[in-house]
Amino acid sequence: MAEINARTELQVTTGPLPASRKLYLSGTLHDGLRVPVREIELEKSALEPPVRVYDPTGPYTDPDANIDIMKGLASVRGDWIAARGDVEAYEGRAVRPEDNGQRGSKRASAAPTFPNVVTRPLRARAGGNVTQMHYARRGIVTPEMEYVAIRENLGRERLIENRDHGQPFGAEIPDLITPEFVRDEVARGRAIIPANINHPELEPMAIGRNFLVKINANIGNSAVASDVAAEVDKMVWAIRWGADTVMDLSTGDDIHTTREWIMRNSPVPIGTVPIYQALEKVGGIAEDLTWEIFRDTLIEQAEQGVDYFTIHAGVRLPYVPMTAKRVTGIVSRGGSIMAKWCLAHHKESFLYERFEEICEICKAYDVSFSLGDGLRPGSIADANDEAQFAELYTLGELTKTAWAHDCQVMIEGPGHVPMHRIQENMTKQLEACHEAPFYTLGPLTTDIAPGYDHITSAIGAAQIGWYGTAMLCYVTPKEHLGLPDRDDVKTGVVTYKIAAHAADLAKGHPAAKLRDDALSRARFDFRWRDQFNLSLDPETAEQFHDQTLPAEGAKTAHFCSMCGPKFCSMKITQEVREFAAKQNTDSYLASENIRRETSPEQARQAREGMEEMSEKYREEGGRLYVRAEE
Amino acid sequence: MAEINARTELQVTTGPLPASRKLYLSGTLHDGLRVPVREIELEKSALEPPVRVYDPTGPYTDPDANIDIMKGLASVRGDWIAARGDVEAYEGRAVRPEDNGQRGSKRASAAPTFPNVVTRPLRARAGGNVTQMHYARRGIVTPEMEYVAIRENLGRERLIENRDHGQPFGAEIPDLITPEFVRDEVARGRAIIPANINHPELEPMAIGRNFLVKINANIGNSAVASDVAAEVDKMVWAIRWGADTVMDLSTGDDIHTTREWIMRNSPVPIGTVPIYQALEKVGGIAEDLTWEIFRDTLIEQAEQGVDYFTIHAGVRLPYVPMTAKRVTGIVSRGGSIMAKWCLAHHKESFLYERFEEICEICKAYDVSFSLGDGLRPGSIADANDEAQFAELYTLGELTKTAWAHDCQVMIEGPGHVPMHRIQENMTKQLEACHEAPFYTLGPLTTDIAPGYDHITSAIGAAQIGWYGTAMLCYVTPKEHLGLPDRDDVKTGVVTYKIAAHAADLAKGHPAAKLRDDALSRARFDFRWRDQFNLSLDPETAEQFHDQTLPAEGAKTAHFCSMCGPKFCSMKITQEVREFAAKQNTDSYLASENIRRETSPEQARQAREGMEEMSEKYREEGGRLYVRAEE
Repeated sequence: MAEINARTELQVTTGPLPASRKLYLSGTLHDGLRVPVREIELEKSALEPPVRVYDPTGPYTDPDANIDIMKGLASVRGDWIAARGDVEAYEGRAVRPEDNGQRGSKRASAAPTFPNVVTRPLRARAGGNVTQMHYARRGIVTPEMEYVAIRENLGRERLIENRDHGQPFGAEIPDLITPEFVRDEVARGRAIIPANINHPELEPMAIGRNFLVKINANIGNSAVASDVAAEVDKMVWAIRWGADTVMDLSTGDDIHTTREWIMRNSPVPIGTVPIYQALEKVGGIAEDLTWEIFRDTLIEQAEQGVDYFTIHAGVRLPYVPMTAKRVTGIVSRGGSIMAKWCLAHHKESFLYERFEEICEICKAYDVSFSLGDGLRPGSIADANDEAQFAELYTLGELTKTAWAHDCQVMIEGPGHVPMHRIQENMTKQLEACHEAPFYTLGPLTTDIAPGYDHITSAIGAAQIGWYGTAMLCYVTPKEHLGLPDRDDVKTGVVTYKIAAHAADLAKGHPAAKLRDDALSRARFDFRWRDQFNLSLDPETAEQFHDQTLPAEGAKTAHFCSMCGPKFCSMKITQEVREFAAKQNTDSYLASENIRRETSPEQARQAREGMEEMSEKYREEGGRLYVRAEE
Repeated sequence: MAEINARTELQVTTGPLPASRKLYLSGTLHDGLRVPVREIELEKSALEPPVRVYDPTGPYTDPDANIDIMKGLASVRGDWIAARGDVEAYEGRAVRPEDNGQRGSKRASAAPTFPNVVTRPLRARAGGNVTQMHYARRGIVTPEMEYVAIRENLGRERLIENRDHGQPFGAEIPDLITPEFVRDEVARGRAIIPANINHPELEPMAIGRNFLVKINANIGNSAVASDVAAEVDKMVWAIRWGADTVMDLSTGDDIHTTREWIMRNSPVPIGTVPIYQALEKVGGIAEDLTWEIFRDTLIEQAEQGVDYFTIHAGVRLPYVPMTAKRVTGIVSRGGSIMAKWCLAHHKESFLYERFEEICEICKAYDVSFSLGDGLRPGSIADANDEAQFAELYTLGELTKTAWAHDCQVMIEGPGHVPMHRIQENMTKQLEACHEAPFYTLGPLTTDIAPGYDHITSAIGAAQIGWYGTAMLCYVTPKEHLGLPDRDDVKTGVVTYKIAAHAADLAKGHPAAKLRDDALSRARFDFRWRDQFNLSLDPETAEQFHDQTLPAEGAKTAHFCSMCGPKFCSMKITQEVREFAAKQNTDSYLASENIRRETSPEQARQAREGMEEMSEKYREEGGRLYVRAEE
């Protein structure tokens, strides 16, 4: 078996983001909670406290954490799970050659196995149920729920006075998220906390319409590209830039081994599409798939700690012919495999018929369902058609079945949809699926821009996120063209953080606007460093700025290259403000208080600062404009 | 004076785009119209006609055109203008040193002057009016109007049967654009055709809610960057990727000379913000601006052929203090200059008070108004505030004044706006400005992503375009950080073509979906070449594809790197379709006809092709999946 050199092959990016430090907040209901938040430090002249932002980056951005990919991350939830006293360790399923695509004559394994594989995984005691929904419905506020409440609450108190309630389209976002609120949302199925009991490294997070909009990044190798080290690196890289969950969509060999490395090093929920691996086990012949092979794959992955499964149980035999008229037929891989199976056997999907048995597995490990939209449209022409909605209503029916088992459920959505048909998707999903969280891919709002589909889809993602989608699955510039590399992953994640944040603002999330306002004040005050540090991608922002004005001095200069020294509108505005101030000092001070959310004292200081500045201009000859070279 | 070497310094990108040829369509009302359209040729196996797309690229993509930047473009409209018999040539205003920033001791001119400057420009005969609106209101269908009708009509006939009427928000887009429709839209002020009589090189285009959504690209040097050759190159580069108009926002020296080079080589309307140059003429001291200097600048630019002026006449003295409370004050350069002037003199804006005199100039050359939103919000916090809307209603009042002079008008809009406040901007603009075309910058839907503001703004631009904005002003990745270079210009233009096209689809533009459907069919059929060629940026699409699967063979392979050979959902779909077909051949053929908009004969051929393919699979051992290496 191939050896692996952690130092060279398994390098991942660590260390804090610029001007940022990680804080850990503790809870009140449960001892020992360490909930991460990132604080961005501002320049002294800002007279503002640090800005807190949601932090999915895990220990990788904590300078005090000892990162060793060969060992994996430390346990976060181990004690919580044990304390509930409802699980048992048992002799796990032995890894088989076919789990890694080793079939027939093909035997040599390519990828090195993870050193510390858990051989005795956990499961619910016989007849038990360990899902967060199960606890929630019994009125139990788990540590996971309190953790999520603290995490979602970032700086929220500070905005309650002048909260912009936006247009929430029926979402009910409270001023403050309480642990009880989280429990209630999970209990009624409006939110999920994907948290397999075999993924103790997980830092719990929630996916629901009344929480911050989340984003997912897809990674995974295929038969023609990628490898283990690259996938682990991509996972760490994706969460560094803001991915809330990661899906491992590997389809080639070494699927089992690759997943083990990812699971053991991931602080975020990991999702998979089990049918991909099941198909590998039967040599890629869809007709040869059986319930037994699929079931075995579910248990294999549940024991590894996969947090949510995409299950295409809504692709039913009678729906398949509905796709014949389509321009792009069936574009979901899982959907097309099941469609082929149904037609080949002329039988109903075994995923649909065995759904309750799948629920039994999921509730024994707390694997959440991500009910796949196997018939999602693959082009503008196919959007919102008969096949798509027929499946959606079946997913709603399956949601009720899963809920009867206290299984957590989210629903996957399209795809390719023109803007005027997006809201119908959200409305129908809420109605058909009883407010179970929606998890959409894009949607792409036009088909004509391969190479830019992170943008064609961000346009749709921001809108459907605003309408109520709980998690947005990212799309990279390589969509339709190839597998994303490291740069594509970053571009996709940052683009989707933009879409999710734009949605949070429009939904009226109480804490969302804090960061926009802080960055805009920095922009107005020419605090370039703060602008970079507050942005989603400080490195790119600074690099772009430096292409035109590299000098360190320029970063504090009162102009920028867009206008040049003689044309700075923001500088002129400062003078306008001084005029206005002189006209009405009191109302100006009052407005300053509103503007900066600071004390009268701070506002006075700010104003004195401005006056010193204009004093300085007068000394310089009273000229309003200063040449760059001076 | 500096010499210029056309061969080395004035290189621009010419030649057709991949698989594309330029056609010229003729009219029926006027002789000699040569209206450009681009036809994208598809592979034979597509069994489809070439796809026609709107073509703003001018002669630069015509292999038969003789491009010489030193000479400028050939005249398109010269004869039409002369034939109307309502203009006179006269001794134009002599270029003064201050026109190029030469003041006081500063004398040496940096930039070389354009060789063939027109010394005797045209203007309306005394008391005359040469605006397209003036003709339209007299029932005259000008060659410009017929040209626009043909241009907007691309392939529209082909979609009337199964047109998706979208959600037009009150737009009234006919199945077919007639010259009379164009005349009527211009007459009632719902559309403009920016077309200065001194810009005969112009290929006429329309900006209006019932036409294709247009995009503008900003270029121009500033005191700290750029030069003449680079600006001409950027203009040609911008229209190559789809810019419909270009604004020259130069603010440094050589403004006059730079503009001359751009005008003489531009087939698209050129817009400017005259206050920038006027301010240069008074050494950058806003207080020193006078009506006389501004008026002189308008005439200077009108004689050069500028097609539309941004005039910030809505920044009135009483509105200025309304911005004191703002987080980012006044971010419009023109707006802040006028605000400073108003406060310094404690007088009403001379742009507002002299507005009718400005109309007199505009109607003598047919310069369209772009009424500037000098008080647009520069941050999410300032969106839709008192100052912004106070100005908007003043712009509506000025629109009526301009229309009384038969002057063409569009209205500039924000800026930074969260999604839930975007539609209010459109609704208020339509009401306040009597349906005059809206021309918006973005809007940016969040402030937290400098370096990605082409994306934060494309999200807002697609929405406001859908709601009714007629032209979208692009934003590049360098927004807020620096001046866009060549790559930024391309990224900005392609991103905004996406936003505009997504809006056309959502508004239900009859011809918009043609391109999406053609590309999606190519995707489904694995015609990689056609996918690249039909995309907005064929070079990037092919380059991304080749990063994972470079082999030329891969471009025709029936799988791609996202899935690998064993997992191609589209291939499986073809098999699904065959199953469905066998179940019901007739309905399948019928559906094929709908799907491909082809004859039953072509559908039969297509189906036979598919069957040959599956035959081939059977010969290869009947395996559904083919390994990459085979």
